[in-house]
Amino acid sequence: MSKVQVGIIMVSQSDLPVMSEAAEILEDLNISVEVTIVSAHRTPDRMVEYGRKAAGRGLKVIIAGAGGAAHLPGMVASLTTLPVIGVPIKSRNSIDGWDSVLSILQMPAGVPVATVALDGAKNAGLIAAQIIGAFDEKVSKAMADYKEGLKKKVLDSATELENKGWKARKIGFQ
Amino acid sequence: MSKVQVGIIMVSQSDLPVMSEAAEILEDLNISVEVTIVSAHRTPDRMVEYGRKAAGRGLKVIIAGAGGAAHLPGMVASLTTLPVIGVPIKSRNSIDGWDSVLSILQMPAGVPVATVALDGAKNAGLIAAQIIGAFDEKVSKAMADYKEGLKKKVLDSATELENKGWKARKIGFQ
Amino acid sequence: MSKVQVGIIMVSQSDLPVMSEAAEILEDLNISVEVTIVSAHRTPDRMVEYGRKAAGRGLKVIIAGAGGAAHLPGMVASLTTLPVIGVPIKSRNSIDGWDSVLSILQMPAGVPVATVALDGAKNAGLIAAQIIGAFDEKVSKAMADYKEGLKKKVLDSATELENKGWKARKIGFQ
Amino acid sequence: MSKVQVGIIMVSQSDLPVMSEAAEILEDLNISVEVTIVSAHRTPDRMVEYGRKAAGRGLKVIIAGAGGAAHLPGMVASLTTLPVIGVPIKSRNSIDGWDSVLSILQMPAGVPVATVALDGAKNAGLIAAQIIGAFDEKVSKAMADYKEGLKKKVLDSATELENKGWKARKIGFQ
Amino acid sequence: MSKVQVGIIMVSQSDLPVMSEAAEILEDLNISVEVTIVSAHRTPDRMVEYGRKAAGRGLKVIIAGAGGAAHLPGMVASLTTLPVIGVPIKSRNSIDGWDSVLSILQMPAGVPVATVALDGAKNAGLIAAQIIGAFDEKVSKAMADYKEGLKKKVLDSATELENKGWKARKIGFQ
Amino acid sequence: MSKVQVGIIMVSQSDLPVMSEAAEILEDLNISVEVTIVSAHRTPDRMVEYGRKAAGRGLKVIIAGAGGAAHLPGMVASLTTLPVIGVPIKSRNSIDGWDSVLSILQMPAGVPVATVALDGAKNAGLIAAQIIGAFDEKVSKAMADYKEGLKKKVLDSATELENKGWKARKIGFQ
Amino acid sequence: MSKVQVGIIMVSQSDLPVMSEAAEILEDLNISVEVTIVSAHRTPDRMVEYGRKAAGRGLKVIIAGAGGAAHLPGMVASLTTLPVIGVPIKSRNSIDGWDSVLSILQMPAGVPVATVALDGAKNAGLIAAQIIGAFDEKVSKAMADYKEGLKKKVLDSATELENKGWKARKIGFQ
Amino acid sequence: MSKVQVGIIMVSQSDLPVMSEAAEILEDLNISVEVTIVSAHRTPDRMVEYGRKAAGRGLKVIIAGAGGAAHLPGMVASLTTLPVIGVPIKSRNSIDGWDSVLSILQMPAGVPVATVALDGAKNAGLIAAQIIGAFDEKVSKAMADYKEGLKKKVLDSATELENKGWKARKIGFQ
Repeated sequence: MSKVQVGIIMVSQSDLPVMSEAAEILEDLNISVEVTIVSAHRTPDRMVEYGRKAAGRGLKVIIAGAGGAAHLPGMVASLTTLPVIGVPIKSRNSIDGWDSVLSILQMPAGVPVATVALDGAKNAGLIAAQIIGAFDEKVSKAMADYKEGLKKKVLDSATELENKGWKARKIGFQ
Repeated sequence: MSKVQVGIIMVSQSDLPVMSEAAEILEDLNISVEVTIVSAHRTPDRMVEYGRKAAGRGLKVIIAGAGGAAHLPGMVASLTTLPVIGVPIKSRNSIDGWDSVLSILQMPAGVPVATVALDGAKNAGLIAAQIIGAFDEKVSKAMADYKEGLKKKVLDSATELENKGWKARKIGFQ
Repeated sequence: MSKVQVGIIMVSQSDLPVMSEAAEILEDLNISVEVTIVSAHRTPDRMVEYGRKAAGRGLKVIIAGAGGAAHLPGMVASLTTLPVIGVPIKSRNSIDGWDSVLSILQMPAGVPVATVALDGAKNAGLIAAQIIGAFDEKVSKAMADYKEGLKKKVLDSATELENKGWKARKIGFQ
Repeated sequence: MSKVQVGIIMVSQSDLPVMSEAAEILEDLNISVEVTIVSAHRTPDRMVEYGRKAAGRGLKVIIAGAGGAAHLPGMVASLTTLPVIGVPIKSRNSIDGWDSVLSILQMPAGVPVATVALDGAKNAGLIAAQIIGAFDEKVSKAMADYKEGLKKKVLDSATELENKGWKARKIGFQ
Repeated sequence: MSKVQVGIIMVSQSDLPVMSEAAEILEDLNISVEVTIVSAHRTPDRMVEYGRKAAGRGLKVIIAGAGGAAHLPGMVASLTTLPVIGVPIKSRNSIDGWDSVLSILQMPAGVPVATVALDGAKNAGLIAAQIIGAFDEKVSKAMADYKEGLKKKVLDSATELENKGWKARKIGFQ
Repeated sequence: MSKVQVGIIMVSQSDLPVMSEAAEILEDLNISVEVTIVSAHRTPDRMVEYGRKAAGRGLKVIIAGAGGAAHLPGMVASLTTLPVIGVPIKSRNSIDGWDSVLSILQMPAGVPVATVALDGAKNAGLIAAQIIGAFDEKVSKAMADYKEGLKKKVLDSATELENKGWKARKIGFQ
Repeated sequence: MSKVQVGIIMVSQSDLPVMSEAAEILEDLNISVEVTIVSAHRTPDRMVEYGRKAAGRGLKVIIAGAGGAAHLPGMVASLTTLPVIGVPIKSRNSIDGWDSVLSILQMPAGVPVATVALDGAKNAGLIAAQIIGAFDEKVSKAMADYKEGLKKKVLDSATELENKGWKARKIGFQ
Repeated sequence: MSKVQVGIIMVSQSDLPVMSEAAEILEDLNISVEVTIVSAHRTPDRMVEYGRKAAGRGLKVIIAGAGGAAHLPGMVASLTTLPVIGVPIKSRNSIDGWDSVLSILQMPAGVPVATVALDGAKNAGLIAAQIIGAFDEKVSKAMADYKEGLKKKVLDSATELENKGWKARKIGFQ
């Protein structure tokens, strides 16, 4: 691994259990990441600096996670020309995640955030990989292998279920 | 009227039909306002400057309106120690207003926005007046008169309905 | 501390774990509070008296918390010219908090309630402090220090995360 | 017709087109009504007086309609031992009626409001009639006739559709 | 106690923990009840018979509880001229209670169900008592006493909180 | 065409514009239908009779449409062993269709209704055809042809768009 | 038991605890099933093959379960002329089940999925049985017996409750 | 302009008014697009072919729009390693857009779709441009100019409002 290509930011350390899934999958795919904390509401200057300098520092994608009235992804998007992927987090004070989803997804025309599922940081990492892979054959190949792996796991699981029968499996769950 | 005490900001001129209700009620109550456009996503520097300088310029309250993924009220709240009143606007691309409401209301602990009803700019103006009135007897008196006026209108309307009877009134509507 | 400036009321003692966060932050900011129980539905006379006398007793702000069909904040707002901050509480019988939020937020024009996030009593306290701080430099300074503290905590947390690396931190959570 | 048995109240004249359906069906069933305007938020004293005196004046049921953060039905229920029927109204500023419904329906234990469908004032009138009919055979008979009428209309409509065929009917709609 | 005046029905024994609250409050108020199980979907004939015979057997009010696609209250309402109070139950398979609430509340014009809050069986019992109390002074007096008791409990709780202070109380909760 | 295989019922003639789409597609596929009006709430006896006799009369599938608190599909399902397809209708008084959908979809275990999209009567007709087609090769063939037709329409539309270019098409819309 | 008539597919083994209820009820009703895993997103080729070959292999009905953005039921429906029953599953990452329900229920005209309640796999099995029963008297008889069993259970439960009284029963729950 | 870099697909021509906004902004930014129709449910083979061949044909990004139970974006994402941007469309039969949003956003781990706001095709185009711009300085420069243009428009609009005053502007709207 070498130059950092993806910046992963979140509002507080309590978001790390969710957001680290983005870092993990990216490192698995051999893409270098940086992970830090930036709060739109508590450190606005840090956020402005992070957003403004990201492209110049060589980042290709920013992944930003936040919960509740989640402004970090959209505000960073306003400060950079890089693609920003937003991860709505079902934080402790969120209303079942709806606030997190809507305040990231519903950005006005001109300032987009590429939004993933609630707590979907892994998929945020994968979109970052797909973006890089569109211009880097090695990463594109790694993505294809990853997809092949997903497929194999389903097929193995199907074979196991068919062989043992659904009743056996059901017992297995209990 | 004299020194501007309330700053009213909105994301675009298309929000003015809603937001001007805040300006109107405040001027009716003899409180001086300024009205302008500040976009969190399109003019972040202007927003930072507006928020940071508001208290120093003598403002007592900021009213900020936005729709969709509405970040302006919360971001301005992060930049000032003044009370910020947020007006969720049911803009053209909002999902029935839920995005506007939730992305203003559900601010994290430490950075509050005082939120009013969807499109409730008039009430935002009234809260600003109540805030000023808590420390200015003339304004407090004007608020009391305003409430008296509301009451009188209901009583008149009740008397009219009782006198004419509900059937007559019903015809009146058609 | 001296004269009580903020009245904090709630519908029952079961709301105290949420509502005491408002009292705590206000006392931390050196603002004197009173805390009591007022039920719109069970003690309407007490509510009328509380609302009508609040301004005369020298209160500057009222914070009212309630859950379900939450009428206390709006009804108190109808009885005073003081600013009323409403705290929607996700009580045991609430439908995921939506009833609490909507029956406080969606007040009709003329009778505003400044609403905070679900269970957001701390932010209600902070809005009260901001209101007082707009007219009291000492409080305004305390608010600025509080915000500085929030910022420092984020920066420390970011430094820690960057130094130890996200994997170490992740282990720390488990 | 004679002594008024059902009091129908609403927050403003703009609710009359909905609420008059309650009055109409009750008069059709030969039950005497009174119709007036009472605002919880603008005329709290009038509301207290209305609620407190209703039973003494001989009313048997109160029907109260309101929209948005709809407090009138619940507050009146706190002021009387009479059954109170609440009509959530989809007023101009309501969020699709959800606020009206939830702030009437979700009353706390001890202070019930019998809630009907959004804009369901006719059904509110019918519940009032059923309540009176449970203790007055003439009204009970009228209710039975009313139900018979509903049934006959459906049967006639079914016969017409079956005779003419669904295609003819469909043309009839265009 | 004597003649049964209120029939309480539910879809299955699993609803009894909720529905027994209606029975309890009614017996506390000295009103005689019957409690049984009637399923709209599993015993439609029993439901038709129950609904059709209820008035003839001397019942004055029916309370019906159900969850999910909750058809029992509405179907019974179609079979009687008595007032029917519906209790939406947040059963195991309900989607957060929304299905229960909407399939009871949103009855078509002509066939009303008086709906209470989710799991609000106690309030259903109280509405039944208020209905009977509107025509029976002894019950009306019992309701007034009940309300007085609610008020006293709030006042005692307020006094306790004010005397001990909110910090002491808060410790008490932990 | 010959023996009626599918019964299509609805609550009132106002549902015919929606429900006739089921009849149309079934007749297009050469399956004989009957169309009539049955109200769960206004004609419960007729509903019981319709449900109980449907299988004996030779029907294979029942399609039932209703809006608001929509009990017809579920109640008919309780009265027959035939598959019942439910069509939630966004009627005038429905809350955006959510009540219609939830009160049909969320049937308890043991009494299923096969639910289609809001106002999705055409798809209800197609499911009925698929059910019959599973046991009738001619109908199965007709279904395959229908699907082929859908495909051809998309392909033609794609070709047209590609040939004319999206700008031309866009002008065409205006 | 003999020839497989119902294919039950799901996205992953984690759905088996829900989906096995469909298999169980079908085997109870003496209908032969196959149970396996097919992922729309991870094994699209397997899905295409499964859908295309289902009818030719003699299946009469397909039951497909999925959660979140649940595409399996709708995609399989696009690949077969057999009736497809969709089971929305409240999986770990679903937003309270709403995503699962809406992405299965709201299929476009022409490609229907017969949807059951959230986690309603048992009812999916019963619809499959009803479909087969419409053309197979033995199955139809088994369905009638099943319904009779449901009825008996309710009646027994009612008798028990009536005999022991609701208070005894309530104690029984604790 | 030259080699096509972005493929824009939609389910039917009725989506073109929304989806053409993506094409427009991309052409404005000098990025070559192709626009066509692909239906997941009506032309599954075409969809498989489109998804599988996209990368090989040199596309860098796919933008897919759909409404209701919107499966096209997610299914195409399962068939390619390119980044797929999903546009939820508020189509005629959608339930206020919630179905469109949730069935695109809530994709399972492993198969991401980068989702934009309801009807947010313009933002989908901009994300595609940002993706390409992250690896192509000319496009990155065009994006920066575009953002500068947004900012200028807000500043001009603010100046105009401040100069003319909010009352004049308000008149201008009428």
